[in-house]
Amino acid sequence: MHTVRDPLARGALIARDRPAVLCGNTVLRYRDLAERVRRLGNALASLGLQAGDRVAIIANNCHRYVETYLAVPGSSFVLVPLNTRSAPAEIAFALQDAGVRVLLTDRPAASYDDLVERVIRLPDGYEDLLERTPPAPLPNEPNEHDIAGLFYTGGTTGRSKGVMLTHRNLIANAITALAWTRMTEDDRWLVMAPMFHAAGTCCVLTCCWLGASQVMLPSFTPEGALDLIETTHATGTLAVPTMLNAMNQVQAEKPRNVASLRMLSHGASPAPLEILRRAHVLFPNAELLHLYGTTETSPIATTFPHEERHLDDRLAGSAGQPALGVDVAALGPDGIPLPPGEVGEIAVRGNNVMAGYWQLPEEDAKALRGGWYHTGDLGFLTDDGYLFLVDRLKDMVVTGGENVYTVEVEDALYRHPAVAEAAVFGIPDERWGEAVHAVVVLRHPATEEELCEHLRGIIAGYKIPKRIDLRTEPLPKSGAGKILKRELREPFWVGRSTRIGN
Amino acid sequence: MHTVRDPLARGALIARDRPAVLCGNTVLRYRDLAERVRRLGNALASLGLQAGDRVAIIANNCHRYVETYLAVPGSSFVLVPLNTRSAPAEIAFALQDAGVRVLLTDRPAASYDDLVERVIRLPDGYEDLLERTPPAPLPNEPNEHDIAGLFYTGGTTGRSKGVMLTHRNLIANAITALAWTRMTEDDRWLVMAPMFHAAGTCCVLTCCWLGASQVMLPSFTPEGALDLIETTHATGTLAVPTMLNAMNQVQAEKPRNVASLRMLSHGASPAPLEILRRAHVLFPNAELLHLYGTTETSPIATTFPHEERHLDDRLAGSAGQPALGVDVAALGPDGIPLPPGEVGEIAVRGNNVMAGYWQLPEEDAKALRGGWYHTGDLGFLTDDGYLFLVDRLKDMVVTGGENVYTVEVEDALYRHPAVAEAAVFGIPDERWGEAVHAVVVLRHPATEEELCEHLRGIIAGYKIPKRIDLRTEPLPKSGAGKILKRELREPFWVGRSTRIGN
Repeated sequence: MHTVRDPLARGALIARDRPAVLCGNTVLRYRDLAERVRRLGNALASLGLQAGDRVAIIANNCHRYVETYLAVPGSSFVLVPLNTRSAPAEIAFALQDAGVRVLLTDRPAASYDDLVERVIRLPDGYEDLLERTPPAPLPNEPNEHDIAGLFYTGGTTGRSKGVMLTHRNLIANAITALAWTRMTEDDRWLVMAPMFHAAGTCCVLTCCWLGASQVMLPSFTPEGALDLIETTHATGTLAVPTMLNAMNQVQAEKPRNVASLRMLSHGASPAPLEILRRAHVLFPNAELLHLYGTTETSPIATTFPHEERHLDDRLAGSAGQPALGVDVAALGPDGIPLPPGEVGEIAVRGNNVMAGYWQLPEEDAKALRGGWYHTGDLGFLTDDGYLFLVDRLKDMVVTGGENVYTVEVEDALYRHPAVAEAAVFGIPDERWGEAVHAVVVLRHPATEEELCEHLRGIIAGYKIPKRIDLRTEPLPKSGAGKILKRELREPFWVGRSTRIGN
Repeated sequence: MHTVRDPLARGALIARDRPAVLCGNTVLRYRDLAERVRRLGNALASLGLQAGDRVAIIANNCHRYVETYLAVPGSSFVLVPLNTRSAPAEIAFALQDAGVRVLLTDRPAASYDDLVERVIRLPDGYEDLLERTPPAPLPNEPNEHDIAGLFYTGGTTGRSKGVMLTHRNLIANAITALAWTRMTEDDRWLVMAPMFHAAGTCCVLTCCWLGASQVMLPSFTPEGALDLIETTHATGTLAVPTMLNAMNQVQAEKPRNVASLRMLSHGASPAPLEILRRAHVLFPNAELLHLYGTTETSPIATTFPHEERHLDDRLAGSAGQPALGVDVAALGPDGIPLPPGEVGEIAVRGNNVMAGYWQLPEEDAKALRGGWYHTGDLGFLTDDGYLFLVDRLKDMVVTGGENVYTVEVEDALYRHPAVAEAAVFGIPDERWGEAVHAVVVLRHPATEEELCEHLRGIIAGYKIPKRIDLRTEPLPKSGAGKILKRELREPFWVGRSTRIGN
């Protein structure tokens, strides 16, 4: 019976004069945040939006993002957060696929204006709208089974898919986060992962429910993150490993006072143990807490509290144990959970599992068969429930916390007339965890730069291969004519464990 | 989608070798607890019980009580915990009203044998049964909307009522408790309130979900409680104010090492501020946390964390703010929430509110009208959500944490041939918070002792008036002939605030 409305309603009652969001020089108390959320919900309704209509946002982290995250589902509209790094063609696809009516954005991109009925510019257009709208109670009371948002992720079929998360899904994650954050109204949660990712909004509802504060980092830099920890006395945060690595380096060179930080959680991609060991030394008061999950699981599926105690024992590199309220299993080919230690496809069950993919019932049938969400990750569970991931079923590269589906990059390469064959895969990379790598056979001459330039118009920058290896020999193929990517990939991974830590 | 099964399933996975229950010299690890719970569920099924059948327990706190609390609803049977202090007639009523098939009890009471199909004696009969039954998976998977238990409370109509709490209700309270206990697997929760009350079982599911330990105090004595805090390094507990008062006295006289105690929560009846001030001095590491609730609300409705910071400010004596996931309002006579500061009937809404009273649809209609549970308490909320209770609508005395409905005591008195008129009400009492007091007009001579002896066969000892004031003059009455209890009650309360702190 809970919806996205409830956490802020409680926060605004029990902590009305406490800081809700710290964003640059702006401090919103809970009463201010609640008032602005009411104004925004009513402003959107006054534009003619009906319950169920889609509202997209493309913006850096800021208090207005928090307001949008709360007001849109809180008014029974459907939030569509889009990646600021997506290419124009990708954004256009998502806006049209979702049937977005209104877009909020801090980008100058006039090109979106033709794709939606209305663009609201942050901050000025947004502030004008709020000022003109009275803070009446939010319109359209939502139901727990309503869709709260469509969260676009890369897809194995070369197009991105809108993950439908219901109010109940987001509330389930907020309850899970209660357990692993152990947050109180005295906490200050630093939001440094981008809010268009689940990692950025993972604790918004939990903070509101408890009356805790959120500190906004508009766009990640290690200096910016460390400065905010020092100046706001932030007590917790969630990083992706590339952020952690960068923070380690800067903190070692020019230490800030990070004594306030009691929880340094991380997830979304593999974290080398050495990065964690250094983080434990450099952030000595912080519990390291490993999180694993997917957009489809709202997102948290497993948690590993006090990971810093296990960096050199049998649990090192584990993704932790099933989060509170979440079932996790390694399934065999028959869809039955395997005994401890046996490798299968990691699957997740619980109130946190998505309702399905937007208008893709055939994808739902695959992803949600047998009542489990199939993550596409391969791994095993120990008999005390620790998850170890060993590989991926889906052909996906995780680079700096972003998922890149290789088929999408291959499709984009094939659209260049010179490309005869293309294979894309991940190779080890010290900075990004994995780097996107391509092997291309040309049908007529072209340079690596030409191919990259071609890709830039079609896919986001982070999806573009860091290196394209141009060949003249045909790629190795199976008897059925399928390119044997594993053979191309293997030489890069020799001597490295395929076990990954996320 | 969560049921009473889920918390132990997680505890047994993530904390299988950690202590789940400490009870005398017995230490059950989570794997032991889970195995015993599976044996018990299957043993009950092997006796012929079907999903929905009722199983009662009358016993002191012990690990077998925890097992029963988890196994009975976990196997889709319905738990009926009965008050060990109830009179035989009261127990007979509840067993018959609920249609109990099996009774588990540590009492010698052979008299129950005729009232149920089967009595299982603790500990021997129980242990025999477990030993004979294999620890197969629990039978009968429950649904979240199934009734998990019938919790008998005194009733305004002179008979007790079975409060139907569903799996979802109990899980909602477990989620609420996550927020206010901030428990981790390193915690040890001392269970000193009797487990037939919601105060005793308030944190069972939360402990299991997180893999925390529970420490059993079979029957409360202040020495026993303090010794257990010292020897087990208990980190938290829930007391009723009479317990707190007794513990204060003993701790002042003969201090134990109570440094481990970080949370001292209390509820169920008014706590004089002086008791709280002393507790803060005597348990200096403990956060005082005030809880308010009712059996019908599973039980927690409001929470007041760090109450020790507010014993001398405007919030002193408040019952705190709405618990996470719970709505609380003061309703006017029209059933509409009143503005802050206005006194109305306190009402509660949320996933924690009971499904209704067992086979009393007309009581449900009254108690649950308008989508709110009506507590019968009068009070107001401040504009920042702090609840202050000022009086009771229901004619009820709260004595030592037990609710006594005065009409029930009056009915029992009227069943004595010498009683012409009887009025029962609460008067201030230093030890019990309130004491049950009676004023009786006799039709022919009888002594106070005779009347008490008469009552002992009918109602529980704690319901029997501490004093019976025998009069010959008729009692004051309204124009309609109703006894004016308020006139009789007032002289005892002169100079005291009617504001109560629970």
